Amino acid sequence: MRVVWSRLIRFIATDGRVLRGDPIMPTPDFDLGLTTEETGLQARVIEGDDIYDTSGKAKVSDEIVTVGKLLGPLTAQDVDVLRCVGLNYAKHIREAGRIPPPFPFIFFKPTTCLHDHGADVEIPRVAQDDQADYEGELSIVIGKDAKDVPLETALDYVAAYTVGNDVSSRRLQRDPRLAGNVPQWGFSKGFDTFAPHGPALIAAPLIGNPRELLLQTTIDGEVRQKESVSDLLFDCAYLIHYLSQGTTLRKGSVIMTGTPGGVGAGLKPPRYLVPGTVMEVSISKIGTLRNGVTFV
Amino acid sequence: MRVVWSRLIRFIATDGRVLRGDPIMPTPDFDLGLTTEETGLQARVIEGDDIYDTSGKAKVSDEIVTVGKLLGPLTAQDVDVLRCVGLNYAKHIREAGRIPPPFPFIFFKPTTCLHDHGADVEIPRVAQDDQADYEGELSIVIGKDAKDVPLETALDYVAAYTVGNDVSSRRLQRDPRLAGNVPQWGFSKGFDTFAPHGPALIAAPLIGNPRELLLQTTIDGEVRQKESVSDLLFDCAYLIHYLSQGTTLRKGSVIMTGTPGGVGAGLKPPRYLVPGTVMEVSISKIGTLRNGVTFV
Repeated sequence: MRVVWSRLIRFIATDGRVLRGDPIMPTPDFDLGLTTEETGLQARVIEGDDIYDTSGKAKVSDEIVTVGKLLGPLTAQDVDVLRCVGLNYAKHIREAGRIPPPFPFIFFKPTTCLHDHGADVEIPRVAQDDQADYEGELSIVIGKDAKDVPLETALDYVAAYTVGNDVSSRRLQRDPRLAGNVPQWGFSKGFDTFAPHGPALIAAPLIGNPRELLLQTTIDGEVRQKESVSDLLFDCAYLIHYLSQGTTLRKGSVIMTGTPGGVGAGLKPPRYLVPGTVMEVSISKIGTLRNGVTFV
Repeated sequence: MRVVWSRLIRFIATDGRVLRGDPIMPTPDFDLGLTTEETGLQARVIEGDDIYDTSGKAKVSDEIVTVGKLLGPLTAQDVDVLRCVGLNYAKHIREAGRIPPPFPFIFFKPTTCLHDHGADVEIPRVAQDDQADYEGELSIVIGKDAKDVPLETALDYVAAYTVGNDVSSRRLQRDPRLAGNVPQWGFSKGFDTFAPHGPALIAAPLIGNPRELLLQTTIDGEVRQKESVSDLLFDCAYLIHYLSQGTTLRKGSVIMTGTPGGVGAGLKPPRYLVPGTVMEVSISKIGTLRNGVTFV
């Protein structure tokens, strides 16, 4: 599908208003995640409450404003729910000695996990004890209701792609003393702020084939994850096809497609998030999602 | 908290309008789930879009109408997301030889799972193969945002209680050929119509102590599940307290509290849902949630 904007950012304009806009790219490969007040980025204001609307209610206006501070492109009002895919990068599965799942492994994050680009992820007390971790991911944003979608037309339902970070609590997820004898995803990954997204939504036609994207996660300047999206065991089209079986993926559904090797829990010794850690997840053609960490 | 209604039903009135109402109980123990056009149940119309509102925008009006057909009390607009608790009835865990989890085991259902009282649950093709199953449950409806709630005040956030059925697909959940080597909940329990609720929301003050409720599930007239809610390993107050750690349980969050022993998969031999099966889940003080089954 084709939404009315090419790229969508949400921001505080230099005049103080919180707006959505279609940025005027200073260069074709400008990284929107590096936007600051100093870069003087300008954007055409996007009007309308429904960012997926194609009926004419949403439009890119002629009003041009200057971006002061970049926020996240998605709020809880824009998103139905977040579906996340576990164990989806083939090399990562082989490295970890895990058996590839026969079908996508799915868990959910509630919309209260959404968090702005540039804001600190807030680790609650129950998840602070040597366990907070990052997972850089490509996220798919569904722009119209999808149910029982054939593989061939699955990508027609994609409004945009963006970058997500599936922040996780490893002990709550895996430690038998906390999780019991089966790993848990529902509580350990569902805290407020645990799914930052950004820096922008990039409309599907600008991305073309998502398999050609490259993902890289940097922690405090050190590259930890670096992988081609072509390594996905279940690619974007298959995920939409598979997940829509008997299930309406409502407009505003987000699919976080999984993370490659290199998370903190997999390092020897493991290295977890601490107050002040800076996480940067970059995907080619989209930009860099940047978040700090605080313990609350 | 105290919402403006005592009981909330949603229904098609005999004049054809779809309304919400506070039913005028013919007898104190009338089972709202047995409402038909013939019972001539009357209700005072509830006005306002936000059923949890306590500011005066929602109110029980003086208009009295006759109920034609009962629907479900909750629509996707009323619910943020559904959290479900696995393995939460102590006797059931012991019977099954399972180890009680140290903390609640949580998974999510999206709001597209919500389904009306009286309507057939629609089993999609991918879940039809000897695996569709029922799970009768007490559901908590949160009426105001809850975060980091102490145990002592946790029940103050409950607007109402109702009956839910956590419809499940056992092979997609547990068969290694479909689920891989870890059980799955996200896809197998998330199909459209897989969380019917009803027959009514009962305001928290009318329930009093939820531990005193009795749950019973009948399949085609045969009692399969019968248990006191006091057997919950993690009770309603604890679930709200635990789940609200670092997490906003938004107004309209539903918590399905878990199912006791007696599901179809646990029978010898197992007995799964087939087209025409009639499922009835009854909870004292709330009523009977009744749903048929179709394969689609």
